[in-house]
Amino acid sequence: MTQKMKCFVMHRIGQVGVIEKPVPRPGPSDAIIRTTAALICTSDTHTVAGAMGDRQGLTLGHEAVGVIHELGELAAASGLFHVGQRVAVSAITPCYACDNCQRGYPSQCGGMLGGWTFANVKDGSFAEYFHVNNAVANLAPIPDGVTDEQAAYCCDMLSTGFVAAEFANIPIGGSVAVFSQGPVGMMATVGARLCGAGLVIGVESAPNRIALAIKYGCDVIVDFTKEDPIEAILKLTGGKGVDAAIEALGSAKTFAACVSVTRPGETISNVGFCCERTA
Amino acid sequence: MTQKMKCFVMHRIGQVGVIEKPVPRPGPSDAIIRTTAALICTSDTHTVAGAMGDRQGLTLGHEAVGVIHELGELAAASGLFHVGQRVAVSAITPCYACDNCQRGYPSQCGGMLGGWTFANVKDGSFAEYFHVNNAVANLAPIPDGVTDEQAAYCCDMLSTGFVAAEFANIPIGGSVAVFSQGPVGMMATVGARLCGAGLVIGVESAPNRIALAIKYGCDVIVDFTKEDPIEAILKLTGGKGVDAAIEALGSAKTFAACVSVTRPGETISNVGFCCERTA
Amino acid sequence: MTQKMKCFVMHRIGQVGVIEKPVPRPGPSDAIIRTTAALICTSDTHTVAGAMGDRQGLTLGHEAVGVIHELGELAAASGLFHVGQRVAVSAITPCYACDNCQRGYPSQCGGMLGGWTFANVKDGSFAEYFHVNNAVANLAPIPDGVTDEQAAYCCDMLSTGFVAAEFANIPIGGSVAVFSQGPVGMMATVGARLCGAGLVIGVESAPNRIALAIKYGCDVIVDFTKEDPIEAILKLTGGKGVDAAIEALGSAKTFAACVSVTRPGETISNVGFCCERTA
Amino acid sequence: MTQKMKCFVMHRIGQVGVIEKPVPRPGPSDAIIRTTAALICTSDTHTVAGAMGDRQGLTLGHEAVGVIHELGELAAASGLFHVGQRVAVSAITPCYACDNCQRGYPSQCGGMLGGWTFANVKDGSFAEYFHVNNAVANLAPIPDGVTDEQAAYCCDMLSTGFVAAEFANIPIGGSVAVFSQGPVGMMATVGARLCGAGLVIGVESAPNRIALAIKYGCDVIVDFTKEDPIEAILKLTGGKGVDAAIEALGSAKTFAACVSVTRPGETISNVGFCCERTA
Repeated sequence: MTQKMKCFVMHRIGQVGVIEKPVPRPGPSDAIIRTTAALICTSDTHTVAGAMGDRQGLTLGHEAVGVIHELGELAAASGLFHVGQRVAVSAITPCYACDNCQRGYPSQCGGMLGGWTFANVKDGSFAEYFHVNNAVANLAPIPDGVTDEQAAYCCDMLSTGFVAAEFANIPIGGSVAVFSQGPVGMMATVGARLCGAGLVIGVESAPNRIALAIKYGCDVIVDFTKEDPIEAILKLTGGKGVDAAIEALGSAKTFAACVSVTRPGETISNVGFCCERTA
Repeated sequence: MTQKMKCFVMHRIGQVGVIEKPVPRPGPSDAIIRTTAALICTSDTHTVAGAMGDRQGLTLGHEAVGVIHELGELAAASGLFHVGQRVAVSAITPCYACDNCQRGYPSQCGGMLGGWTFANVKDGSFAEYFHVNNAVANLAPIPDGVTDEQAAYCCDMLSTGFVAAEFANIPIGGSVAVFSQGPVGMMATVGARLCGAGLVIGVESAPNRIALAIKYGCDVIVDFTKEDPIEAILKLTGGKGVDAAIEALGSAKTFAACVSVTRPGETISNVGFCCERTA
Repeated sequence: MTQKMKCFVMHRIGQVGVIEKPVPRPGPSDAIIRTTAALICTSDTHTVAGAMGDRQGLTLGHEAVGVIHELGELAAASGLFHVGQRVAVSAITPCYACDNCQRGYPSQCGGMLGGWTFANVKDGSFAEYFHVNNAVANLAPIPDGVTDEQAAYCCDMLSTGFVAAEFANIPIGGSVAVFSQGPVGMMATVGARLCGAGLVIGVESAPNRIALAIKYGCDVIVDFTKEDPIEAILKLTGGKGVDAAIEALGSAKTFAACVSVTRPGETISNVGFCCERTA
Repeated sequence: MTQKMKCFVMHRIGQVGVIEKPVPRPGPSDAIIRTTAALICTSDTHTVAGAMGDRQGLTLGHEAVGVIHELGELAAASGLFHVGQRVAVSAITPCYACDNCQRGYPSQCGGMLGGWTFANVKDGSFAEYFHVNNAVANLAPIPDGVTDEQAAYCCDMLSTGFVAAEFANIPIGGSVAVFSQGPVGMMATVGARLCGAGLVIGVESAPNRIALAIKYGCDVIVDFTKEDPIEAILKLTGGKGVDAAIEALGSAKTFAACVSVTRPGETISNVGFCCERTA
């Protein structure tokens, strides 16, 4: 008899609810995870608002950790994972075999943003159990000293923010502007700090985010509702511009602002993804 | 008595002519070149049309070769150059000492595009003699087997086109789209070929340019007056897009087209510079 | 009844022969290839000579092409390959899932040189049929205009030589020294030419290799039995050294020579692998 | 009348003393600095011991800061520096015009290590005044909040150590081995920490250095007099090796050890320079 589980789904654009679905079974290289902790991403709200098009009965969620419930034969044969193990699952679950993956761009698996499958082209992780393809590549063991709640932040927010900082080529002591201090932007701030930034300028207007952004490493906040961020950042850097800019909102306007405030020759990391689409 | 020379100048926006000026004298690290060959760049016509603002009596020209007429004491002391030597002079003459130069971006010497001084912030090379700052860094000896006429093409067209290809990270056998087959775009085509491109797609509509572009290495020409270049390039690459795109026109529209036709993760070189501004 | 096939094996160190083995069957992500063309690598002779330790009954060969005979369920489900298709198989067959693969070093799959499994830790391709793991990542379709014999050169010699040139950061017109003009070194010469090298210096002493090396793109040959290669290369480059050196023999001495002849700051590609071990 | 000054010189190999020399005068692009703070480098002791060959009456020292005493006409005309300004002077003083400098390797100015001129091919900074070529490129203003004593550490120890970490491509959370915890190695440890290292392993045996290395950021010390450093580092990294190794001693043996402990594909920074030559 097929085991059933509860899932939090998008019924259609604008409408969500809890329904029952069968617990998924793994293919040869897959794993089934029993969910122990999960986080809501702004992208979930965009999806429900229709940003990805209509979806009917699709389970939401792409940031979750849990315990391995079942492993496909190849995943088990690898010897790297076992049933009962605590694991974090990346929000992006590429095949690591296609042309784009082999070229080093697994997020673009198969095509633009094709690595993003959860709650997009397959059921997500807001369920009692969820399915992970290419388990050996897409699971990460959780060390004993890390709780499930802590590990859940690594699935997307922290890793996306950190990679933004790593790609930004920040020199030791360099200046960095991070546009938007949402969860990803805030983790980009932490990442910039870890990469040796000497001056981190956050662009943000929400008071609670400003307070957290300063706690997490911003030296200065530019509130774009009170001053022009381009002028403010150029002024803060003696007219030179920053050594690196990180776009963590997802609008054409902030991307253009990144270009305007970055010194000639230097790098812009763009990890914002349509976060502006919904109010 | 001060020696005089003839110069081709911009009297004011839209008006040019020949006037006399004193032959320039070198500062300690400079050189004075007696011009033997020079080329007109589209940028000269833009400058006359007012693209850089009004200039009164400014000598035009930034692509020239010649013979060293006089050397400053430091340039002479280097032992690397001597009076009477045939040399080519880069269109860009940076200081190689400022912050931007030391960071590896000499074209941005002192500030955005600050390495471009000829016929912009100082007299250019359309004169019997012209002045070169930082001579040791900005002169290149012309080998015996190369004529002055040939060497003149290295000052800007060829070097700008080649660097576009070098920066484009073209894999051996890779596909490249070069937007516009003007002199720089055509040399980017040659450069892409030298860098191992397997498929070079030129975007161009002028029949004479199309003929030359094919001669210089384009495998296919997309005529943007007859088909949508983005659709055409995606079709030519099986829907995947090119491994590299080179923007050699200088418009926001072609830059956006480069983004649209380039595979996720790959590189766009932008060497177009306001070439669209004049008809 | 199990189907049988003929295999060319290493019985033990120094002894080879033909034996029968069962035709292999694919796991879920694997493919079985019916061999149509294969090439002998110097590494095969090293393996027989004992370079990798003793092997008993191991099928030799890692450069082969053929026709897909059977596909595992996952490989078939990808829709990218089908039974009967002509394919080339890389000499290196990584998992593309482990840590090293994800870091971008598939040749080091699982550990140092772990991507090399054929005729090393599993049966090779000198058999009527052979097994390929991770088929989607490790098979390449052969275009119609390319014969099996031609495609076989892509499995190792050509791809290893080309990647040496791609990793060597050769500027357009740059000078390159390629130590040893064996099959890989010769293809590195071709690769350097494709990457825009202006001067390719081959180091070699065998007359037949010298003739081929010149045909494939060497401008100059330094015969190390007649002159000191370091001195000769420095002399050929006006004392400056080359812009890139490629080590394609596999000895500590040639690697040290690469360091000696390369300009400060520039790149050495090392693709030589124990080719010196056997006479 | 020529002004005189006291200088600490190397009379000949093994013998030092204080003599008088004329205060130097600047060429057009040079500066004369009145010394206010200087540091002894291990290289000074090597030079006296004869590592660079015999020198007679050469002023020692290459790590010094001071006040601008006189500026050449070009240096003054730049408007970037003025007499009386507090400045730090890099230990390496390249021309920034030659081929190697333009290729991005100013330390190799003119030839291998040619950027090192102080106390090598010209008088050093252990004098009341010293001469700096290419002043605009080689002077750095000292901010008001930084003392001369603090700034002196930036001339070599700190900058050499930091660049070792920047070149080592350390991922956030990555593991780094730093061979030798002398002044440069210790600053490489600080640099690795600033670049986001998660585990820094120092190789050192001197108790006072071990104590400081831990203070400055080493998580673990491997004492090579008590255990094999290669085995110890492999063990500390679960057999995988480190993500980056920094060679800060200058021996062939430690360089080879760096290769042995670094994961396939990853980076070794080599900033050790003959520090092993003297006891």
